[in-house]
Amino acid sequence: MPEEFTHDVWTMGETMVRFTPRGFTRLEDAHELEVRTGGAESNIAIALARLGLRVAWVSKLPRGPLGSLVARRIRSHGVDIDHLVWSDHGRAGLYFIEPGAAPRPTRVLYDRAHSAASTLEPSDIDWDVLDTVRHVHLTGITPALSASCLRTMERALTEARKRHCTVSFDVNFRARLWGPAAARVALAPLVARVDLLICTEADARVVFQLSGGYQELLRGLAAMSHARAVALTLGSNGAVVYDGDRYLQSSAFEVSVVDRIGAGDAFGAGLIWGYLRDDLQLGLNYGMAMAALKHSIPGDEFSATQEEVESLLESAVLEIQR
Amino acid sequence: MPEEFTHDVWTMGETMVRFTPRGFTRLEDAHELEVRTGGAESNIAIALARLGLRVAWVSKLPRGPLGSLVARRIRSHGVDIDHLVWSDHGRAGLYFIEPGAAPRPTRVLYDRAHSAASTLEPSDIDWDVLDTVRHVHLTGITPALSASCLRTMERALTEARKRHCTVSFDVNFRARLWGPAAARVALAPLVARVDLLICTEADARVVFQLSGGYQELLRGLAAMSHARAVALTLGSNGAVVYDGDRYLQSSAFEVSVVDRIGAGDAFGAGLIWGYLRDDLQLGLNYGMAMAALKHSIPGDEFSATQEEVESLLESAVLEIQR
Amino acid sequence: MPEEFTHDVWTMGETMVRFTPRGFTRLEDAHELEVRTGGAESNIAIALARLGLRVAWVSKLPRGPLGSLVARRIRSHGVDIDHLVWSDHGRAGLYFIEPGAAPRPTRVLYDRAHSAASTLEPSDIDWDVLDTVRHVHLTGITPALSASCLRTMERALTEARKRHCTVSFDVNFRARLWGPAAARVALAPLVARVDLLICTEADARVVFQLSGGYQELLRGLAAMSHARAVALTLGSNGAVVYDGDRYLQSSAFEVSVVDRIGAGDAFGAGLIWGYLRDDLQLGLNYGMAMAALKHSIPGDEFSATQEEVESLLESAVLEIQR
Amino acid sequence: MPEEFTHDVWTMGETMVRFTPRGFTRLEDAHELEVRTGGAESNIAIALARLGLRVAWVSKLPRGPLGSLVARRIRSHGVDIDHLVWSDHGRAGLYFIEPGAAPRPTRVLYDRAHSAASTLEPSDIDWDVLDTVRHVHLTGITPALSASCLRTMERALTEARKRHCTVSFDVNFRARLWGPAAARVALAPLVARVDLLICTEADARVVFQLSGGYQELLRGLAAMSHARAVALTLGSNGAVVYDGDRYLQSSAFEVSVVDRIGAGDAFGAGLIWGYLRDDLQLGLNYGMAMAALKHSIPGDEFSATQEEVESLLESAVLEIQR
Amino acid sequence: MPEEFTHDVWTMGETMVRFTPRGFTRLEDAHELEVRTGGAESNIAIALARLGLRVAWVSKLPRGPLGSLVARRIRSHGVDIDHLVWSDHGRAGLYFIEPGAAPRPTRVLYDRAHSAASTLEPSDIDWDVLDTVRHVHLTGITPALSASCLRTMERALTEARKRHCTVSFDVNFRARLWGPAAARVALAPLVARVDLLICTEADARVVFQLSGGYQELLRGLAAMSHARAVALTLGSNGAVVYDGDRYLQSSAFEVSVVDRIGAGDAFGAGLIWGYLRDDLQLGLNYGMAMAALKHSIPGDEFSATQEEVESLLESAVLEIQR
Amino acid sequence: MPEEFTHDVWTMGETMVRFTPRGFTRLEDAHELEVRTGGAESNIAIALARLGLRVAWVSKLPRGPLGSLVARRIRSHGVDIDHLVWSDHGRAGLYFIEPGAAPRPTRVLYDRAHSAASTLEPSDIDWDVLDTVRHVHLTGITPALSASCLRTMERALTEARKRHCTVSFDVNFRARLWGPAAARVALAPLVARVDLLICTEADARVVFQLSGGYQELLRGLAAMSHARAVALTLGSNGAVVYDGDRYLQSSAFEVSVVDRIGAGDAFGAGLIWGYLRDDLQLGLNYGMAMAALKHSIPGDEFSATQEEVESLLESAVLEIQR
Repeated sequence: MPEEFTHDVWTMGETMVRFTPRGFTRLEDAHELEVRTGGAESNIAIALARLGLRVAWVSKLPRGPLGSLVARRIRSHGVDIDHLVWSDHGRAGLYFIEPGAAPRPTRVLYDRAHSAASTLEPSDIDWDVLDTVRHVHLTGITPALSASCLRTMERALTEARKRHCTVSFDVNFRARLWGPAAARVALAPLVARVDLLICTEADARVVFQLSGGYQELLRGLAAMSHARAVALTLGSNGAVVYDGDRYLQSSAFEVSVVDRIGAGDAFGAGLIWGYLRDDLQLGLNYGMAMAALKHSIPGDEFSATQEEVESLLESAVLEIQR
Repeated sequence: MPEEFTHDVWTMGETMVRFTPRGFTRLEDAHELEVRTGGAESNIAIALARLGLRVAWVSKLPRGPLGSLVARRIRSHGVDIDHLVWSDHGRAGLYFIEPGAAPRPTRVLYDRAHSAASTLEPSDIDWDVLDTVRHVHLTGITPALSASCLRTMERALTEARKRHCTVSFDVNFRARLWGPAAARVALAPLVARVDLLICTEADARVVFQLSGGYQELLRGLAAMSHARAVALTLGSNGAVVYDGDRYLQSSAFEVSVVDRIGAGDAFGAGLIWGYLRDDLQLGLNYGMAMAALKHSIPGDEFSATQEEVESLLESAVLEIQR
Repeated sequence: MPEEFTHDVWTMGETMVRFTPRGFTRLEDAHELEVRTGGAESNIAIALARLGLRVAWVSKLPRGPLGSLVARRIRSHGVDIDHLVWSDHGRAGLYFIEPGAAPRPTRVLYDRAHSAASTLEPSDIDWDVLDTVRHVHLTGITPALSASCLRTMERALTEARKRHCTVSFDVNFRARLWGPAAARVALAPLVARVDLLICTEADARVVFQLSGGYQELLRGLAAMSHARAVALTLGSNGAVVYDGDRYLQSSAFEVSVVDRIGAGDAFGAGLIWGYLRDDLQLGLNYGMAMAALKHSIPGDEFSATQEEVESLLESAVLEIQR
Repeated sequence: MPEEFTHDVWTMGETMVRFTPRGFTRLEDAHELEVRTGGAESNIAIALARLGLRVAWVSKLPRGPLGSLVARRIRSHGVDIDHLVWSDHGRAGLYFIEPGAAPRPTRVLYDRAHSAASTLEPSDIDWDVLDTVRHVHLTGITPALSASCLRTMERALTEARKRHCTVSFDVNFRARLWGPAAARVALAPLVARVDLLICTEADARVVFQLSGGYQELLRGLAAMSHARAVALTLGSNGAVVYDGDRYLQSSAFEVSVVDRIGAGDAFGAGLIWGYLRDDLQLGLNYGMAMAALKHSIPGDEFSATQEEVESLLESAVLEIQR
Repeated sequence: MPEEFTHDVWTMGETMVRFTPRGFTRLEDAHELEVRTGGAESNIAIALARLGLRVAWVSKLPRGPLGSLVARRIRSHGVDIDHLVWSDHGRAGLYFIEPGAAPRPTRVLYDRAHSAASTLEPSDIDWDVLDTVRHVHLTGITPALSASCLRTMERALTEARKRHCTVSFDVNFRARLWGPAAARVALAPLVARVDLLICTEADARVVFQLSGGYQELLRGLAAMSHARAVALTLGSNGAVVYDGDRYLQSSAFEVSVVDRIGAGDAFGAGLIWGYLRDDLQLGLNYGMAMAALKHSIPGDEFSATQEEVESLLESAVLEIQR
Repeated sequence: MPEEFTHDVWTMGETMVRFTPRGFTRLEDAHELEVRTGGAESNIAIALARLGLRVAWVSKLPRGPLGSLVARRIRSHGVDIDHLVWSDHGRAGLYFIEPGAAPRPTRVLYDRAHSAASTLEPSDIDWDVLDTVRHVHLTGITPALSASCLRTMERALTEARKRHCTVSFDVNFRARLWGPAAARVALAPLVARVDLLICTEADARVVFQLSGGYQELLRGLAAMSHARAVALTLGSNGAVVYDGDRYLQSSAFEVSVVDRIGAGDAFGAGLIWGYLRDDLQLGLNYGMAMAALKHSIPGDEFSATQEEVESLLESAVLEIQR
């Protein structure tokens, strides 16, 4: 293990161009779309880079303006994109968000098939970069994209393990990409090799067919994964982390929702932040505060600062004391 | 009566160009206005066409860009506008909406006097189209526009009756166009010749001077109109339909209001849909769901799909079952 | 005649709300319109107020947001609108501009019939304000709006004459409001009572049926009007002023056209400025420079400064000197 | 052949959603994109429908908001889209336009692979609709999309021929979809069965390897196709039509370019209009005027009227006469 | 004291250009900013001018487009700006607003140092204008801007007193400009010379180190200032006015917050309105209604009408009666 | 000198937030401003990074959203900003652009006084970074900002020289910051220590009081500076480079101007690119092509690619060959 890390976190996964109509305009009525970018892994990379960590994000992008658009947005936050793979084949993955208003739900239309990222292969990646990486973050979206993506994922785990990088994994089941059974088969062996597992309550039940209360779900996930810590997210009910011993909890902040997308990733980033400081409770608290702040920001990206996270956590403490 | 209908529904009435400032900007402060279109009858036509019915909308529009703008927006939803009357005289009716925020009410500024539509005359219309029409929908706005509009309306009823089309009528009292007394005098004989009557609670009291609880109001309206069915809308309290026998009810959905305009028309469309399927309860339910969805959509138009209506109704049933 | 004037210029006429689509979008395709205001007389009032004169503009506006919008935009430039007539009847005149690109011409769609301004009557105006006014400016648009507007115009001339105000008049024939013959009949007696007459070459030929070269046209106009000075505008060929003795000329600046509307009014303002300083050549030069600057500014309004006018005139002199 | 046609023109082909940044913003810098639609065949369908013809456009669109967006925009102009095929598979074809300014060229980024339209098969189409169609229009883009599209194209020609529909064909070689050799092999047998062939000078040389002056090119195309008439477009040099006898010519109008895309389709529509009236010179003139007007309109669509075409042609005649 | 006032109210203070991103976009993410203007004193001037009072606002602005922008916006509401000081030195004060959404607070970034307004000196002002002014309004922001501003403020008080103008003063402590102790030292002697004092609960405690319930705070402020009336604003709890005898109260309206900025100034304007009519309860009620309406309007400015204030107050009375 | 450079180019200077109204709207009329960033040195840094060089840009920015906005935009292009100095004092420099249209000139309003960048001091910078830097680029703007900036500039030259970095210098005289005489005094000793000097024809005459034809100007600059190469830019007449021996020339491309700002910096970047490859003619050609491409792009930034530069140069060669 190297004395000096060049990167605190390395992550890999697809980032798409995101299109959103103004206000509550329906997509079929739209005459203008806002252009942003988003992807579970780069969302996490951005959030951690904004907290001051040195983060590298790896993916495969098509050469051309849409690839450049994605790369520039992510790099603007200080994420290292020097190890990106640029491809002459494949398209840019896209997604369209149609913001809802009760009783009309928000609708997400993915257009990511045949993307350059879905052609990612183990040989595309320079694995030696991991020599000086401390922590690797992966998600359950990548293996759902293609067989070569699944292989790249397995290889990433192997390469990370070989170098004693710690590994976090966010299950992130995507029902539009595969079914729960296929996900279970593919994810189970991956999940068994990580240090920090993050899973929503729904995914625990639907993908891993666990049941019971949240403690049972956590114990079930822990049993599957041998992870040092398992986090279960409960939506507006906050989150719980189980470290094989204690059940650490944190409740969610009241939010006025501007944009929900990326809030789960902001939580993940906070949790990883705490994990890397060996303080899971701090991670839970950061995760809750970061998810809450993300709800107030348009787009996938956590465009906030550590000062804002700290200030929110302090005000919460004050409120409780009164 | 023909074996085969070419149109399920035929409707007639004025559609205006609608201007709305961005966000909550006041009109006098506006430097940009969004351009949409709206009119009670074309709103209904659009909603029914989107449910898959074959609908014709008839009106009189000024030749030129504003007339074309109105025609194209309505036709885009699949409404047949081939029987529109194009005029070299008269202007396009306009209206300006200034969205409010409590305690400031939403304000509507009409600028529809001297419109081409207000010059509509019985001889403008090709009544033989009704030969293959199943149902005719009319509203109480048209007779308020001008004497010739009132005559055209009376003629429409006569022509529809002659051909055994069923007829629905939405009272839609507009206090800026005429007084309650004038409205009562003009509307009473019209209302007496329809099959399905739709009326708000306020209009039942103010225009038709009925009183009492909603059952009394419904019986009063039924007595006036001899309609097979009478619907009374109660705002956030839902709606009730009286078929001379039963009082069918449906409560309103919780909504997060994006744009209220057109919600009454969406309700009307749902009710007509049920009426045409001989299922008033289905119509009530559709009406409630469609009005709720309309609240979430900017503009007058019901830019939603039957799948969304069904899905909202199913989720409502599920919620009740739990 | 009073020792001290409170106003250098008093003018009267209709100002409309102006709607323009973005870029070269056609009106029928527009989903957003920019909102501005414009009217020949208020355009002149604004330009003169920006040169530092004390200018009052009088008109009749409907109470409500559109009337306020018009009033506030004009007042923002320093024009005195305290003598405006506010009406509970009549609408705000509107016009829509569809900017063209060769070979498609710019199209103007007026929607001004039945405006509050067209109901202006002699008794609406407080004529005693003219007691302390030095100069009155009128145009040939007002008499075309309605019979009562024509009467108000005649009265304005009489009241101005009575008080020894000087009077300028811009013919501004509007073919959409009346025919050349009607215009000639109405305008001839008005034109005969002014001190400074402004006319385009086309109006001289079409309305006043004059013919020949520009000197003949000027002499013809001078003969009709008994004005101290007559200005003939020749589009991109500049303008000529005839004072009964000399023919003063000024050529037009090269312009990159952003918005042509209001350029004629900017010329008129410059000419009046010179007239009021007893220097018609200065007025011509100012007029040409102001018309050129106006071409570079979106909207009807001359949003420029006297410094810019002077600086343009100086640069022109420099260019000639080289 | 039926006594009465229900449609003057039937056409078939892919229409994409088109994204354009504001002004001259580069795509990689864009934070907002305008949303429009475009496709060679639907562009022609729109232009012809706006001239008053009854036009049907057939394609395959994905169910969902992007498919609805495409369908509604095209239908808004009066094109019959009732025979569209709606698919649960395949995506909406997209394209991105980056408007250039000298010396930077306009760039078009296609993202149309795997579109629903590219899965069009002969069995998708209701060929019996052609029973009452007078004229069929096809282009060389469709056979380049996929093998099944090529088969559908061949079938369309066969079905059209069987029913004695006349057929026009625009070569429209797309170098991003296939090479010139592949295009030649596929298009040659198609071109041999049409009545009106439209080809750019570049395509005549590159795809069909013809050489010489425009008369030689036209004779070469005529020899290949046995068409009654062949049109060769020469960019800013206008176009020439050869009917086996005469060389009819028309020069291009001077234009101020707002949006070039769709100008070729506007020309094609004008030519077909003339062809259907048996007046090729009229068609050429219409085509030139329509292409010129299209240059002044943002988007692919010919949002102009027949009056504007006529008025442009008249002004051109006037200019020549002077 | 003059028989006839030319101005009901004269006020003096800095107005800044205000930049706001769209929606909830963060400033660092913004690609477009809305441009408005705002300043405590001009906000009050605008609100009072809109109620029909004759109001003059005095400040020092840099010659150039930003100064003109500020001046024109304020004048558009009918405020007299003829006594503005135009400077060739100093910049335009700016501020940036980043609208928050819970739990992220709204953030205001001031960039006002070195502004032209901060160089205001006693000799800049034409004090004789006060000869015909009835009432002077000042705030605690001006003395915080610079030593010369403090001197100008003291002089304004002296000049106002000399002419028997009544004076109102809004404490408006700005923690970014100075500390509470410095504010207390500077403001105490000013506050001692005013007739109507307005203070928030927080400022009473933090700046003037008062304590206790609202009655004690009011008595404390009254003791300090010798004012005829003291108003204490309590945020969503309304406001209380103490006239040395009675404690007049008014509760706040329920509001849906569009833009909070300027609501305190709208309250102040309402209170001054009542004060000038010798009816403090009316002033309190007006103030509450105007603050509520302001919350519904984007920007600092009270772009509402007296009719709206009256109508809101009436509806409130009606609600209570039911 | 190190075997391995970590950076090809290091540059230092102020970058401002740039505000631009839409289209040709005047600043005083603007209701929305586009937000971009610009600064001579960071413009060069961006252009060189986009050509693939490793570039570091150093400056001093205020902590907060405006500082972050500047940093993120520049980093997005791949410029290393890790050595930026973040300050709790000083503001963000701003500038406002009002795009002109003939005869109205484009106007730039600077608001940069008291910026954090103007407080840059020698001790702020980590000079040891230069140990592994190959080339340093500086401009004549920095010394004009403040005395401490001038000292920092002198130190930068000294530190660069000490480490045998090559140095380029762009004179960039800014008349709003200082006079020609002051500039000459300050810049002469700096210019004497650089390897590549870039100067406009006007600056050569006005600042350095040189005269004669371009060859004399170049020899004069060369004599002053002892630079290995001197470039003189001649606006639309291209540029000339003198290497003490040859006069290399390149003519300017025809451009359709979208945004002129930053074109000089794009030229400088191209020239430096050639200088670093020891090919001044290549640099001149690159510079001309890059300046031309920049004219077509809104904003200061050279958002183009090396492929586009190459392709433009090739097309130019082709054109000449014909």
